[in-house]
Amino acid sequence: MASKSCVLLSFFTVLAVSSAYPFKNKQYKPCKHLVLYFHDIIYNGQNRENATSAIVAAPQGANLTILAGQFHFGNIVVFDDPITLDNNLHSKPVGRAQGMYIYDTKNTFTAWLGFSFVLNSTNYQGTVNFIGADPLMQKTRDISVVGGTGDFFMHRGVATLTTDAFEGEVYFRLKVDIKFYECW
Amino acid sequence: MASKSCVLLSFFTVLAVSSAYPFKNKQYKPCKHLVLYFHDIIYNGQNRENATSAIVAAPQGANLTILAGQFHFGNIVVFDDPITLDNNLHSKPVGRAQGMYIYDTKNTFTAWLGFSFVLNSTNYQGTVNFIGADPLMQKTRDISVVGGTGDFFMHRGVATLTTDAFEGEVYFRLKVDIKFYECW
Amino acid sequence: MASKSCVLLSFFTVLAVSSAYPFKNKQYKPCKHLVLYFHDIIYNGQNRENATSAIVAAPQGANLTILAGQFHFGNIVVFDDPITLDNNLHSKPVGRAQGMYIYDTKNTFTAWLGFSFVLNSTNYQGTVNFIGADPLMQKTRDISVVGGTGDFFMHRGVATLTTDAFEGEVYFRLKVDIKFYECW
Repeated sequence: MASKSCVLLSFFTVLAVSSAYPFKNKQYKPCKHLVLYFHDIIYNGQNRENATSAIVAAPQGANLTILAGQFHFGNIVVFDDPITLDNNLHSKPVGRAQGMYIYDTKNTFTAWLGFSFVLNSTNYQGTVNFIGADPLMQKTRDISVVGGTGDFFMHRGVATLTTDAFEGEVYFRLKVDIKFYECW
Repeated sequence: MASKSCVLLSFFTVLAVSSAYPFKNKQYKPCKHLVLYFHDIIYNGQNRENATSAIVAAPQGANLTILAGQFHFGNIVVFDDPITLDNNLHSKPVGRAQGMYIYDTKNTFTAWLGFSFVLNSTNYQGTVNFIGADPLMQKTRDISVVGGTGDFFMHRGVATLTTDAFEGEVYFRLKVDIKFYECW
Repeated sequence: MASKSCVLLSFFTVLAVSSAYPFKNKQYKPCKHLVLYFHDIIYNGQNRENATSAIVAAPQGANLTILAGQFHFGNIVVFDDPITLDNNLHSKPVGRAQGMYIYDTKNTFTAWLGFSFVLNSTNYQGTVNFIGADPLMQKTRDISVVGGTGDFFMHRGVATLTTDAFEGEVYFRLKVDIKFYECW
């Protein structure tokens, strides 16, 4: 009888744990996997030719020193960034990353992302759509792949972002490790 | 026999209804269920310390009285709001709601939402990503849970929003009843 | 033996193609299909009554001639557009298309879309949530249906956009061919 109780106890313990962290024991294997880079050059008033993004909104009735110091809280940036297969800005682009990011913390750098990869290369034709939170001071951040079209028809997955280069307020490069778990 | 007919009649009535509203007779049971609150304090120019959100965009060549009266049509608000387990603004936060809402009707209050829950508590580590329409004068509104990461890896579901408190243009609190139907 | 090799060769050719364009050999049949139109009348400062959308953000420290010529790069437009069953602006609306689009290329017209269909008609009650890239100079463009509520509870799919009418900077009409592949 004692052993039966013990089994039951273990059983409920497992249930409790699996309710709190259900995924952690599962190792899903992606059905498709892509690693790409995109490159963002922020418009500063003088770099019309090279710029790939621009701040388009900022807090009303505020300025940086009042509301958000140097953390850009509330800024919305629209971008059309080249995507490359390696980390070289001058490599032949395989598509464009298009959409927006929003700086959304007052006392550190975090962003909220809504954008698409529009791929147009020998290997891939189609779009991949992303949304998610980007706590960009962390080494890696996961966002959601919520859909796709063309070669990525109905796909879903998770993309891991890494800041691969960051040059002040001028240029940054993100590495995007896309793991699709629903492929169709 | 009478009771059997009655059962049959009920059966066909149910079928007829289910044709017009196919989902309404299906009772899906969530595989995971969370109820959380988030708190929004709008920046008014004087509350730098307490503010958790700010209007960052508004219609060009217009002002409120011309295009949208008091309904804020076109305003984009960026937020970084604390999430709590109960309805008390001063409870220990379990994470942050980060993203934006857009006021999008000229003659009433409605919004479009794109945001993430970034959860960082004993029970949950991970993000949940939401988008959807929020006709905020209605008692309850449903939006989509389109993806997640960490403990919410690949999750999908529906979140029901309720305005739990509303203090003029200063503070509001939303109750978010998250029902996940795909859990992985 | 020659014919056997030939079959094998064909087999590997098919494999190679299917690896590059895995979806193209699959013909999925939608579980639900809707064709709807929505109508966008941009606010120009004088059309308060009729306008259904407004530019709410634009590049800072720039003007159109400097950064983006006539292509509206960086403009964010918030909309609340009527949805109709046919291509007539004056037909009885079956709902509203609410959300935003962002012009996101410097040297042509492309947009990024985040919006919802809020349907309220005899046939459909519920919302459909969309995101995706819209290279609007192309005849048709596919975006993702990432979720839904009400009659579209948990639905996913792909929507094909066609510009059905375009009258300068004043009015456009999009045909939206929604194919749901996950219906619940």
